[in-house]
Amino acid sequence: MIDPQRLEDYLGATLAGPALGDTPPGLADAVRYAVFPGGARVRPRLVMAVALANGDDQPGLTDAAAAAIELLHCASLVHDDLPAFDGASLRRGKPSVHVTFGQSLAILTGDALIVHAFKILGMVGAQAPDRLPALLSIVAGGVGMPGGIVAGQAWECEKNVELSQYQQAKTGALFAAATMAGAAAAGVDPNPWRTLGQCIGEAYQVADDLLDTNGDALTAGKPVGQDQSHDRPNAVQQLGRGKCTQRLRSLVEEALESIPSCPGEATLRTLIGQESEQFMKLALSRPAAA
Amino acid sequence: MIDPQRLEDYLGATLAGPALGDTPPGLADAVRYAVFPGGARVRPRLVMAVALANGDDQPGLTDAAAAAIELLHCASLVHDDLPAFDGASLRRGKPSVHVTFGQSLAILTGDALIVHAFKILGMVGAQAPDRLPALLSIVAGGVGMPGGIVAGQAWECEKNVELSQYQQAKTGALFAAATMAGAAAAGVDPNPWRTLGQCIGEAYQVADDLLDTNGDALTAGKPVGQDQSHDRPNAVQQLGRGKCTQRLRSLVEEALESIPSCPGEATLRTLIGQESEQFMKLALSRPAAA
Repeated sequence: MIDPQRLEDYLGATLAGPALGDTPPGLADAVRYAVFPGGARVRPRLVMAVALANGDDQPGLTDAAAAAIELLHCASLVHDDLPAFDGASLRRGKPSVHVTFGQSLAILTGDALIVHAFKILGMVGAQAPDRLPALLSIVAGGVGMPGGIVAGQAWECEKNVELSQYQQAKTGALFAAATMAGAAAAGVDPNPWRTLGQCIGEAYQVADDLLDTNGDALTAGKPVGQDQSHDRPNAVQQLGRGKCTQRLRSLVEEALESIPSCPGEATLRTLIGQESEQFMKLALSRPAAA
Repeated sequence: MIDPQRLEDYLGATLAGPALGDTPPGLADAVRYAVFPGGARVRPRLVMAVALANGDDQPGLTDAAAAAIELLHCASLVHDDLPAFDGASLRRGKPSVHVTFGQSLAILTGDALIVHAFKILGMVGAQAPDRLPALLSIVAGGVGMPGGIVAGQAWECEKNVELSQYQQAKTGALFAAATMAGAAAAGVDPNPWRTLGQCIGEAYQVADDLLDTNGDALTAGKPVGQDQSHDRPNAVQQLGRGKCTQRLRSLVEEALESIPSCPGEATLRTLIGQESEQFMKLALSRPAAA
């Protein structure tokens, strides 16, 4: 089984005082504020689960890949919350980074987290240099151009957006990077693992859209109704609640069916099934808000 | 000799339409706007010069390292120009990215350039995987925490700043990364190459401070008097013009003396001497502005 404490310990160590050394204290504080306490840590747990299902013979590389994916996710949250985008004042149940530390440090916090993610990969890469190029390409692909989360956010600046392309970049790409990075860290071909991440990512996005239209800020840990107020593509508004619920269920099915043959296949399937049940319950149980 | 066109070709190809694929058009345009036409491209030319002086047996890796360093520099300019920092409306003689594309795309442009820099390294890393971990650590170290350019920018958010620590992070770190990356790309020990980069970087920073206090926007290609209006540490304000000029000359001397023994040592020394003369002339020739 995955040990969530293993990830927290790794993240804690890589952002602790000694690791950050002479970093300006404000930046160091803001970076830690952005990462702790975490949300569900779904993406890094996915990295670790896929690596574990494939033998996890280089746990140091797995930890670094998982942490890198989580730091990149945190960076995107910090920048997305800025007034230039969502202007969200609440994140993970507390004031967002720019509210607490100001916009300058919030921008730099995102930048620093992105760089730190790649730095971590470089630091452990020498343990298995043959796996590093693929891992680096996978992680960068999940975040950058053409179809990573930064590109996904940039679709919000465009007049004409196709919903599935937007969602794939905004959410699916980093989930796909997570499953593929788990495979690459364990030394197996990452490509067959792409569909699993994409399906879970799209399912999460649909669930998030349902929560944004039907949930409340307490459940979501962030403001709701954001898509409508920012005129952003939202699956519920485009397809309706019924079709979204159906789509959510079929994405989870597709995810489970896509799991490639591997030593830990059964355990991984059980784990993903349980997690999916939990987030489906959260997304579907709320009555429509008034 | 270094062929500057080789770098421009590489940058052009990695940011051309086919390479950026389905990137949202606004982001693709903004990213290219941030990189072309370039400034002096001092840092990537330093990468290439040091690699060349050491045999340059993996030119693909050298090109990627040089381009990565330049993209990271461009990213820092885009973010530094934002209203949350300098609020500079002019950069390299044209409106800055946020003026032309808006703040949202400017933030994303910086993010995308940072990620693209690391993506490039991953793409060529397979050519020489044994050199990739060091290269990655060097490049990330020049940009991130504790002492890279993002940390340097974050010192501007602190009340108590030591000038040399600030300048080393804000400018010296990426120059040190440039010389070290050139060595690492060519497969030689990068550490003896740190001093050269640090000295050139600090010299550039002092020259930039002189230009900011004495130059005009046309020569600088950006607004001047920024340090004073933003209450930022500036060597001229702290040490006076005379001591700064002296410091600039001694840094260039120190840089030239630090060049490690290598096959192309003489050519490299001549090149750095000539370039230093040029930027010293620019920084020292302007009369104090009214």
